[in-house]
Amino acid sequence: MAGFNIVPLNELIAQFERLPGIGKKTAQRLAFNILEQPPERAEKFAEALVNARRKIRFCSVCQGLTDTEVCSVCADPTRDKSVICVVAEPKDIIAFERTREFGGTYHVLHGVISPMDNITPDDLRIKELMGRLASGEVTEIIMATNPTVEGEATASYISRLVKPMGIRVTRLAYGVPVGSDLEYADEFTLARALQGRNEI
Amino acid sequence: MAGFNIVPLNELIAQFERLPGIGKKTAQRLAFNILEQPPERAEKFAEALVNARRKIRFCSVCQGLTDTEVCSVCADPTRDKSVICVVAEPKDIIAFERTREFGGTYHVLHGVISPMDNITPDDLRIKELMGRLASGEVTEIIMATNPTVEGEATASYISRLVKPMGIRVTRLAYGVPVGSDLEYADEFTLARALQGRNEI
Repeated sequence: MAGFNIVPLNELIAQFERLPGIGKKTAQRLAFNILEQPPERAEKFAEALVNARRKIRFCSVCQGLTDTEVCSVCADPTRDKSVICVVAEPKDIIAFERTREFGGTYHVLHGVISPMDNITPDDLRIKELMGRLASGEVTEIIMATNPTVEGEATASYISRLVKPMGIRVTRLAYGVPVGSDLEYADEFTLARALQGRNEI
Repeated sequence: MAGFNIVPLNELIAQFERLPGIGKKTAQRLAFNILEQPPERAEKFAEALVNARRKIRFCSVCQGLTDTEVCSVCADPTRDKSVICVVAEPKDIIAFERTREFGGTYHVLHGVISPMDNITPDDLRIKELMGRLASGEVTEIIMATNPTVEGEATASYISRLVKPMGIRVTRLAYGVPVGSDLEYADEFTLARALQGRNEI
């Protein structure tokens, strides 16, 4: 920016701009906001960044995020260890926990199979899932990858591995979202909602 | 968030959420992005935050942002020191520099007079502006505060102080924005555009 060659400012703007969904203008606004506030604000922010990145690791059981050896879900004796909900990303766990409907445990694959992006089953935490199934304690795995082509492919791949072990494999139900307008539902979703219709 | 009580993660989300225009969902997305990337990314970001806040201060002449004693505009011998463009915030300088039309210098008030927010002339860098005018070198000040009630009030206030010193005081022209559609111009802007019409 002509005439505005303040290196530390430009560096801060550049760091904000590297965040997903943050453009040049927004990055500028955020950087100025940091400058307008007391230095403690910037220091606390910096500390939170470094702390989070250093202390958070993957749970040795479910591969979800944790700051301890085993995450709070896996360490909770009241959670049902016979059911594993398999998700693609750690943040998917948040969505399920928010429902307060699920009392089992999770397993995070850290991605989905995607030949286009060169992501093969070996790149996912499938080995670790198999390790957990070997104990014989697990009776059902719920495949909760996204309802996309890659999510489906990953679900079928794992299903084919797990079914021969005599473990039940289920998939999230497809259908119309609660509170949505049928007028705007796409034909694939509507077709699936019809196929999966229930008695009332 | 039930079942997701990872303190360092929640702290990072909270820090992102304190930024203007960043809601809970976005803050979460940004925090996860930091966790997905190498630790160096978080460290560089943290460093940029602390560095910017520590090194950037106000130019001793124009009160704009700088990481040196005097900012690059004020230190530039080719800039016309007889004209001062008075703006409310440091970021306004960026907008003017982008036009590449202005060869003078700036003065940042750090706010506008606003009785509603308890901001009086004493809270602004008006004293510093007066100090610069005392040298006798300045022949014109351009009041470039926002075209809002507070911006106007601030412009008139300063104009009343400066005019008796025999210094020319000008205001940015009002009118319709370049490339805009007259259909959507508000009546005040259009009235001002009429009043300020020029021969073609």
